[in-house]
Amino acid sequence: MMFRKRRPPAGSRPGTLALAQNALPPRISVIRLNRDVCEELVDVDVETVERERAAGDTLWVDVQGLGDPTVLHALADLFQIHPLALEDIVHTPQRPKTERYDEHQLYISRMVRSGEDGHPVFEQVAILIGSNYVLTFQEQPGDVLDPVRQRLRQGVGVLRQNGADYLAYAIIDTIIDYYYPIVEQLSDQIEAMEVRVMADPTPRTLARINRLKATLLEMRRGIWPQRDAVNQLIRDDTPFISDSTRVYLRDCYDHCVQLGEVIETYRELAAGLFNTYLSVVSNRTNEIMKVLTIMASIFIPLTLVAGVYGMNFDVMPELHRPWGYPAALGLMLAMAGGMLWYFGRKGWLRNGDPAATLRDDGDDA
Amino acid sequence: MMFRKRRPPAGSRPGTLALAQNALPPRISVIRLNRDVCEELVDVDVETVERERAAGDTLWVDVQGLGDPTVLHALADLFQIHPLALEDIVHTPQRPKTERYDEHQLYISRMVRSGEDGHPVFEQVAILIGSNYVLTFQEQPGDVLDPVRQRLRQGVGVLRQNGADYLAYAIIDTIIDYYYPIVEQLSDQIEAMEVRVMADPTPRTLARINRLKATLLEMRRGIWPQRDAVNQLIRDDTPFISDSTRVYLRDCYDHCVQLGEVIETYRELAAGLFNTYLSVVSNRTNEIMKVLTIMASIFIPLTLVAGVYGMNFDVMPELHRPWGYPAALGLMLAMAGGMLWYFGRKGWLRNGDPAATLRDDGDDA
Amino acid sequence: MMFRKRRPPAGSRPGTLALAQNALPPRISVIRLNRDVCEELVDVDVETVERERAAGDTLWVDVQGLGDPTVLHALADLFQIHPLALEDIVHTPQRPKTERYDEHQLYISRMVRSGEDGHPVFEQVAILIGSNYVLTFQEQPGDVLDPVRQRLRQGVGVLRQNGADYLAYAIIDTIIDYYYPIVEQLSDQIEAMEVRVMADPTPRTLARINRLKATLLEMRRGIWPQRDAVNQLIRDDTPFISDSTRVYLRDCYDHCVQLGEVIETYRELAAGLFNTYLSVVSNRTNEIMKVLTIMASIFIPLTLVAGVYGMNFDVMPELHRPWGYPAALGLMLAMAGGMLWYFGRKGWLRNGDPAATLRDDGDDA
Amino acid sequence: MMFRKRRPPAGSRPGTLALAQNALPPRISVIRLNRDVCEELVDVDVETVERERAAGDTLWVDVQGLGDPTVLHALADLFQIHPLALEDIVHTPQRPKTERYDEHQLYISRMVRSGEDGHPVFEQVAILIGSNYVLTFQEQPGDVLDPVRQRLRQGVGVLRQNGADYLAYAIIDTIIDYYYPIVEQLSDQIEAMEVRVMADPTPRTLARINRLKATLLEMRRGIWPQRDAVNQLIRDDTPFISDSTRVYLRDCYDHCVQLGEVIETYRELAAGLFNTYLSVVSNRTNEIMKVLTIMASIFIPLTLVAGVYGMNFDVMPELHRPWGYPAALGLMLAMAGGMLWYFGRKGWLRNGDPAATLRDDGDDA
Amino acid sequence: MMFRKRRPPAGSRPGTLALAQNALPPRISVIRLNRDVCEELVDVDVETVERERAAGDTLWVDVQGLGDPTVLHALADLFQIHPLALEDIVHTPQRPKTERYDEHQLYISRMVRSGEDGHPVFEQVAILIGSNYVLTFQEQPGDVLDPVRQRLRQGVGVLRQNGADYLAYAIIDTIIDYYYPIVEQLSDQIEAMEVRVMADPTPRTLARINRLKATLLEMRRGIWPQRDAVNQLIRDDTPFISDSTRVYLRDCYDHCVQLGEVIETYRELAAGLFNTYLSVVSNRTNEIMKVLTIMASIFIPLTLVAGVYGMNFDVMPELHRPWGYPAALGLMLAMAGGMLWYFGRKGWLRNGDPAATLRDDGDDA
Repeated sequence: MMFRKRRPPAGSRPGTLALAQNALPPRISVIRLNRDVCEELVDVDVETVERERAAGDTLWVDVQGLGDPTVLHALADLFQIHPLALEDIVHTPQRPKTERYDEHQLYISRMVRSGEDGHPVFEQVAILIGSNYVLTFQEQPGDVLDPVRQRLRQGVGVLRQNGADYLAYAIIDTIIDYYYPIVEQLSDQIEAMEVRVMADPTPRTLARINRLKATLLEMRRGIWPQRDAVNQLIRDDTPFISDSTRVYLRDCYDHCVQLGEVIETYRELAAGLFNTYLSVVSNRTNEIMKVLTIMASIFIPLTLVAGVYGMNFDVMPELHRPWGYPAALGLMLAMAGGMLWYFGRKGWLRNGDPAATLRDDGDDA
Repeated sequence: MMFRKRRPPAGSRPGTLALAQNALPPRISVIRLNRDVCEELVDVDVETVERERAAGDTLWVDVQGLGDPTVLHALADLFQIHPLALEDIVHTPQRPKTERYDEHQLYISRMVRSGEDGHPVFEQVAILIGSNYVLTFQEQPGDVLDPVRQRLRQGVGVLRQNGADYLAYAIIDTIIDYYYPIVEQLSDQIEAMEVRVMADPTPRTLARINRLKATLLEMRRGIWPQRDAVNQLIRDDTPFISDSTRVYLRDCYDHCVQLGEVIETYRELAAGLFNTYLSVVSNRTNEIMKVLTIMASIFIPLTLVAGVYGMNFDVMPELHRPWGYPAALGLMLAMAGGMLWYFGRKGWLRNGDPAATLRDDGDDA
Repeated sequence: MMFRKRRPPAGSRPGTLALAQNALPPRISVIRLNRDVCEELVDVDVETVERERAAGDTLWVDVQGLGDPTVLHALADLFQIHPLALEDIVHTPQRPKTERYDEHQLYISRMVRSGEDGHPVFEQVAILIGSNYVLTFQEQPGDVLDPVRQRLRQGVGVLRQNGADYLAYAIIDTIIDYYYPIVEQLSDQIEAMEVRVMADPTPRTLARINRLKATLLEMRRGIWPQRDAVNQLIRDDTPFISDSTRVYLRDCYDHCVQLGEVIETYRELAAGLFNTYLSVVSNRTNEIMKVLTIMASIFIPLTLVAGVYGMNFDVMPELHRPWGYPAALGLMLAMAGGMLWYFGRKGWLRNGDPAATLRDDGDDA
Repeated sequence: MMFRKRRPPAGSRPGTLALAQNALPPRISVIRLNRDVCEELVDVDVETVERERAAGDTLWVDVQGLGDPTVLHALADLFQIHPLALEDIVHTPQRPKTERYDEHQLYISRMVRSGEDGHPVFEQVAILIGSNYVLTFQEQPGDVLDPVRQRLRQGVGVLRQNGADYLAYAIIDTIIDYYYPIVEQLSDQIEAMEVRVMADPTPRTLARINRLKATLLEMRRGIWPQRDAVNQLIRDDTPFISDSTRVYLRDCYDHCVQLGEVIETYRELAAGLFNTYLSVVSNRTNEIMKVLTIMASIFIPLTLVAGVYGMNFDVMPELHRPWGYPAALGLMLAMAGGMLWYFGRKGWLRNGDPAATLRDDGDDA
Repeated sequence: MMFRKRRPPAGSRPGTLALAQNALPPRISVIRLNRDVCEELVDVDVETVERERAAGDTLWVDVQGLGDPTVLHALADLFQIHPLALEDIVHTPQRPKTERYDEHQLYISRMVRSGEDGHPVFEQVAILIGSNYVLTFQEQPGDVLDPVRQRLRQGVGVLRQNGADYLAYAIIDTIIDYYYPIVEQLSDQIEAMEVRVMADPTPRTLARINRLKATLLEMRRGIWPQRDAVNQLIRDDTPFISDSTRVYLRDCYDHCVQLGEVIETYRELAAGLFNTYLSVVSNRTNEIMKVLTIMASIFIPLTLVAGVYGMNFDVMPELHRPWGYPAALGLMLAMAGGMLWYFGRKGWLRNGDPAATLRDDGDDA
């Protein structure tokens, strides 16, 4: 959850690139496609990109790893990337947004994947949409875009026939679609937590609720600004998006809105989890107090009776009656019974185990 | 409450349909109507629909079950449904919305009914409003639209004389009207819960409050976007809605706003229920503590007195006086009385049973 | 608080009227007025209304009771009331709003009065503002409009000289002005509750806070939409309101805004009441715990001392010393004194009665 | 805090004035000024005002006390005050606002002063800005405008050289500037309360927090609407404010925004105070419980040991051993030591006094 | 956190300067630059500034310390600073904003630095952007602008080639960039607090959470208005900002939005910290109650048994049996065992130490 932004020292001139210490060297792969051909080249250098571009077909240049400023500047020269755009690409995380430059439209996206430990992992994907090319940049290798590549490879389809803007749409749409399985996974976690918080209201459960809330906050930070950015792509008069692609982006926009609303709903449910937690703890305290009060209220008076007949006064007539001892025991029993009856009438002797009451909860509405 | 959206794998090309495993085969029924005739055909195939359409009258094609892509694509070809529209129809749940296509207006609605177990059940109804036809799609058989069918069958009325847009209005209006009984049912539940939370503040009651809140959240998710969608139908310059029908949609819009506001009010009341719950539990803890404190404070000092006169010192003059024993008992009584007087003055001996105090609550304002 | 809306079964054709079971028959009264005359007719039939209308003067037709569809439809025919407007009049409660029709402007208001039990009672008043008539409809007899009638009767005034729109303004203004005494009554209740919640934090007090909050919610639901509706009357280009009357409606709008803001403030204060409640209960638990802890901590150790000297070991030298008993008692006193000193230093022996501390609260700021 | 608005009975004709029972008679003072002269007349009658006005210079007529309708109506006639404007002047409190009339601009302000008991006191000042006069009305004598008067008296300055609109700006600016010392006073109170709530979490402290919150609510109600009103003066095309004065009003607007934001910040801090209060009480309960638990857990088992050796069985060999008594005492000591060690390990024996921990809070960050 | 604004007494004429008692005398430094030259003069007087200005190059005049009205007025005369602008410069803190005057654009910024004690320190920097000069004013010496100066000194760069507006952008950008390290520092604090609140839920921890929240509030107050001000610089048609610089300000705007959103996220996390705190305290109370209840419930009944056999009745047959004593001890053991079994089944004997449970939290998701 914690926020670290890669950036040069404050006050550096705009365009200064701050690379990560352990940044991976860029691996560039190129997909060139027209109606007939889908040529795929992996691990190429910038010269190859330049050559491929000369062919005039639609080009998808994918850069994974941002560790070599020489390569980045070479690409920037080739595609005339504005220094500020290059900064936005390198200095992750940026807030998702879109900006129009003379040569292309920049779209900063945030991708989410299920990480190795099952927790969602977020990563920035910067997308440059030119007239006949799409550039994508990300820091770590591995992404959610394989389905798009697969569709490109699988022969003549709508994706190949359309231009770079439709390809960019397909990439953005895929990135947003990948929020759905994560949202559904969170949905399962909330449902599981609703049972758990009743059965096991410990600080450990609380820590999990907090982690869930933090994840939801980050999901929101990933999806809401993309909604605005996609909307801007649809509404603004950018020359890099054709009208027919705008129809598809509208669909993409609807997904953003739906995801955003579901995440808001989950945030409310997660807040409810905390409330439930608090009140289950209160109830448990209540139960513990009841046990203490019942035990103390029954036995302390009896102890008094025993204490009274343990006094050493010379003149205590009851002590010398043969019925004294059974009478004293009987008095004790009667007192204990009276207290039990009183507590029973107050309803304190019923079982208050939350987990137990939960089990038979379905019978009435 | 949990969110599952039917969708193809992320990254599939737009227009790919993801059908549910257990989806029912489509059952198509057609109502053809003009000023004189209301012909109703059930369980027909797409060819029949095509034939009926040729007659030129207003047509209502109702598709229940979305399990056969062949049928869906045949309908899509017949009515020129855009691939994205078809996706929105099949991939439920969509957020309620309206979208204009060249051939028709798509309106995604969400219907609510009282399910078999008394809980509200939500289902998507997709409505396509063409120049002289209305198409409705839903996943499960059974809907809330029988009153509309009934009115069509019952001879010449305003519904038959008007075109497809008025028919679509009647369908949307009926779907929204069905929120009213559910809202009133929730209103009863809240009122019942307000009594229950005072009388029985157990985790079971809490679970019910949470369920109520989740239902209200879902009601809101069903009604607010429909308000926007209906407003869009009224304001936007869509050719498929006539001006005279817009007047009626304004009424429909008012219902959405009223339902939305009532649901918001109920959400506030449900939040208040939780607060009441918490404070009733606090009060109960208080009552329990009072009992414990009173019992312990009265009997522990008396036990000390008994203990003192049970000591075995050789020289304890009181023990040998004939008035010693009654004096000790008298001392105990006096001490107990003193404590009771003290607690009485503090107001701790009054009955603090919430249910009891509730009963005589109406006397003053 | 609970929501019940009179409406026909969902899916009925628009214009179907759902009358209440126990609806009262309409009582129509007519006030006809021009610069010279103020003629008042009570309990008339629709024909009389028609006759009076023919005179061309400004007409106020007041209908109390909505139980006879024949009369309602006759009025609708006479004044060309749109079926949807008639529905809004009959199917109470509608959300306050204004709608323009060809023949008149519909204004749905919500009136508040102090009921017989002192609680506020809400009722819908539907107002139709025509070119030279005002129609008012309400379900129950008795309203807050008597001051308007009185002013009409009292000779030549601004009210008589102006047209129907000014009369409608006078009616709306009077309805909104009647919110002020209710708001002031709630203000008193909140002030009283602020004292009470300190002195008597019982579930009964809590139930009253909740009732107060529900009333405030309903006040808000009555006044906010009227603000929007009045604003619409001022801004929209409706021909039924003259410019000179708009100046007066601006005043009316200011009242709505002020009432709305005061109600919001009270809602915050009511939320604060609940917080105070919770914390007073917490403090009381605290006080109870202190008493228990002090009593137990003082007497349990003393009981141990008594117990020790009640043991029956053969060799317990202290028991046989003449100073043994007084020494034991002295030890007990010393222990009790030590505990009291300790608790005193901790500040636990100060009086913690909230009501008491409240009384001397005014001395410092 | 409680809301009382002076107003005629609901339904009175607009323009009816409701005067307070104990309203003071109006004291009128006039300041007439041009580049050379600043003539000041106090306690004059309406005729004098009329005479002064005839001179054609800039006029400031200040009316303190609204108890005489004759005087008010005479002024209204003289300056052509609209009946609704007169109502707004007399029926306090109005929400701060500005309204344009044909003859002048009405500005309803709310003034705050430090009252005699140190609490802020609010009062309405109605300002009428005409082409060459400013009228100010307030209910109680004494105001915050003396600095303005002083500046007028002090010879030729920017205030005298400019027209009535600049004079009005000076008055509004002074009224708003007087919020600053009150805000700073509240700032001190919050800071003091942050210490106090830790040291003395009693209901009395709570009552003060609530009073603070109520004051902040009222401050907000005084300043936010003035922001809108000043903005309206700047933006609207009113002829009574010159462009050069608008520049100064922009400064005034900035002050309103800053005050509003600071007040919002304080409202958040005050809400935080309540949270702190609640948690300090919780912590205290915790501390009390710890003391009880430690005392009871140590002494109750020891009492059992004493009780066991106080039993009267014939055969209890330990009783007859000479080491029996010391052994029993040793056992008790060992048990007490064990319990202390256990509680020490749990960290329960550390001092939990909040005030103490607060004192050494500054050492680490 | 507390709010003190330097300002003249309320009601002073606009333009009156209120200087701080201990205000430092102004130290003026001038940087004159064109494509070739970067001349830097420190500690100069106003005449030198005037001379430098005559050269016609881009000028950066930096004033640190606002303690001498003569110097300030001399500068105001030289650069034609409007009295209201001068007031905004001197009367700190102003809300960040931008205002257009005839001669220049005023931008009020708020700078944040890490203070000597590690806490963030805020200071106002007023920036005047003229056609060929930039003036910066601040109260205390030392700022975050050294990187900008460094870049100016380091020979020909984009900064020198561009005009005064680009220089102003570089200053604003640097000020905003300096929020990033502070935000990251707060991020670390929140992370540390999340562990601490579990391990040590004392009032001291609470006081730190409150301080953190106050800092976040102040960060927000510093950054949100700057977002609006930068946006105004971009959108408004001010002649002092060229179009090419607007592109860079867009980048600056993005940083403001990102910082604002991260701060909002942290405010939510800080609110969550408080909730965690409350519930950890509740859990601790629970644990304490459990210990008390277990100890009391086990030992009080045993004490009763001992008390019973310590009674002095003549006829108590068990006392005289040789197995009496072991039987009594056995009974006690059995009772204790029964209680332990009961509590074990209830799960009360498990270790409830929050810190402990936290340590093994990572195993499952």
